[in-house]
Amino acid sequence: MDSSTRIEQALNAALARVETPAAPSKLASAMRYSVFPRGARVRPRLCLAAAAACGDDQPALTDAAAASIELLHCASLIHDDLPCFDDAPLRRGKPSVHVAYGERIAVLAGDALIVLAFEQLSYVACSPERLPHVMRIVGQSVGMPSGIAAGQAWECEPFCDLVEYHEQKTGALFSAATMLGAAAAGHDPEPWKVVGAKLGLAYQVADDLRDAASDEEELGKPIGRDAALGRPSAVRDLGIDGAMHRLETLVKEAIAGIPPCQGAGDLRALIMSEAKRLVPKRLAAAAA
Amino acid sequence: MDSSTRIEQALNAALARVETPAAPSKLASAMRYSVFPRGARVRPRLCLAAAAACGDDQPALTDAAAASIELLHCASLIHDDLPCFDDAPLRRGKPSVHVAYGERIAVLAGDALIVLAFEQLSYVACSPERLPHVMRIVGQSVGMPSGIAAGQAWECEPFCDLVEYHEQKTGALFSAATMLGAAAAGHDPEPWKVVGAKLGLAYQVADDLRDAASDEEELGKPIGRDAALGRPSAVRDLGIDGAMHRLETLVKEAIAGIPPCQGAGDLRALIMSEAKRLVPKRLAAAAA
Repeated sequence: MDSSTRIEQALNAALARVETPAAPSKLASAMRYSVFPRGARVRPRLCLAAAAACGDDQPALTDAAAASIELLHCASLIHDDLPCFDDAPLRRGKPSVHVAYGERIAVLAGDALIVLAFEQLSYVACSPERLPHVMRIVGQSVGMPSGIAAGQAWECEPFCDLVEYHEQKTGALFSAATMLGAAAAGHDPEPWKVVGAKLGLAYQVADDLRDAASDEEELGKPIGRDAALGRPSAVRDLGIDGAMHRLETLVKEAIAGIPPCQGAGDLRALIMSEAKRLVPKRLAAAAA
Repeated sequence: MDSSTRIEQALNAALARVETPAAPSKLASAMRYSVFPRGARVRPRLCLAAAAACGDDQPALTDAAAASIELLHCASLIHDDLPCFDDAPLRRGKPSVHVAYGERIAVLAGDALIVLAFEQLSYVACSPERLPHVMRIVGQSVGMPSGIAAGQAWECEPFCDLVEYHEQKTGALFSAATMLGAAAAGHDPEPWKVVGAKLGLAYQVADDLRDAASDEEELGKPIGRDAALGRPSAVRDLGIDGAMHRLETLVKEAIAGIPPCQGAGDLRALIMSEAKRLVPKRLAAAAA
């Protein structure tokens, strides 16, 4: 089964748990709305790729771990789009959850997706000693003091280290992706941290570039939000050319960090194709 | 060590994990603010009492499970108090989290507490086969389709079954308390569900009574909110006397449901003293 099929099946299985006839239908619908149709699924694909590189001997755990980080990613987008944060009307080319379902359902959908991300791990038939490792990596990547919630919270502090902010808000879930792939396959996750971390930083720089240099149709959401909101941004700090150079460096560092393993070649290919896909078309054309 | 000490220590240990020098300080502070000073800790005490009745042979897991439900309870209060829900200015006699720290930090504090509730379970040294059971009970009690988030979501539906609403919004965490105590001690949690469920319903009826018949000083938060917001309420449906009678019946049913076990007497005593404490002073005096 290919990676995309595995990921969509795992996400569907997780959401099916909440879609019972007795469930409040708006909340169930909002949860599915935020997870489907599929986004790029960058993080779960990275998780599966890292697991494959490590032998992937318990694929059900790998799939659940991959679903977990995608569910948490979707939860963070819902809360990030709320009026009190970015007040974003669009996400993935359609109305954001609070616009489509109201603010209360948006808060609850984020909450319920966080819970589901952990709960669905408990249903996997796997070596019991691997579960605490997987839970811990998931928790650290999304909570305090160094996960997504921490990264978001830096937006509320008077002083904010741009590197720390990006590492937590975006990098943490990328580090978790590669670490989870390794941990689900019974390997030591620590050496895999740097691969995800560098890719997370690269992804954020690419996101800043797309916010500054894409058009709305290409991006699927409003552009120029970082500048309008005065948010930390690599483009603000380094300019477009500087940010492009930083993106290239980070991708090279990620590839250099891949531990020696059987699937290193495939992983390298995935990373290269992702990096190419993330650069705004206008800049990619200009660079070519 | 007495129950209160165990609970406060477990909560302190969980929060200490997020209070590192590198953590964003407002979010870390808001998380502690919402958990301390101690509320009644009804749910974790019930968890410890059920575990004691079952032998409590792995107290570190019991303590972590108890901390988990209290952290989730605090998270639900923060989000429940948000402007888009109850817009409650006070909680436990002090400004609610969004009033004290702003709405963004309040959303994040709830999120981070949910994550912490699961993550801290992964650090416990316990029989590895017990952890998935504990995680599952926690997840089911707080997520979809039948936990707190589901209960809250019924407030956004055009039709709402009052029994289902209370079972999910309040009862789910009480059922989890007794089930977790049993599961942490290696016992079958299922027979313990009814005890917590009945107590949860009793607690919600008591809450409705206090909202209708306490004064603000006794309650530590504004009174009359249910009527003002048109929310489902036992007092609205049954009147004060009817609600008092329902409370008594539920407490009797909870006590009758306690499975045969060594600590049944202590548990019965705890339930009786809780029930007495929850009735508004004015009504208790009138009934005496």
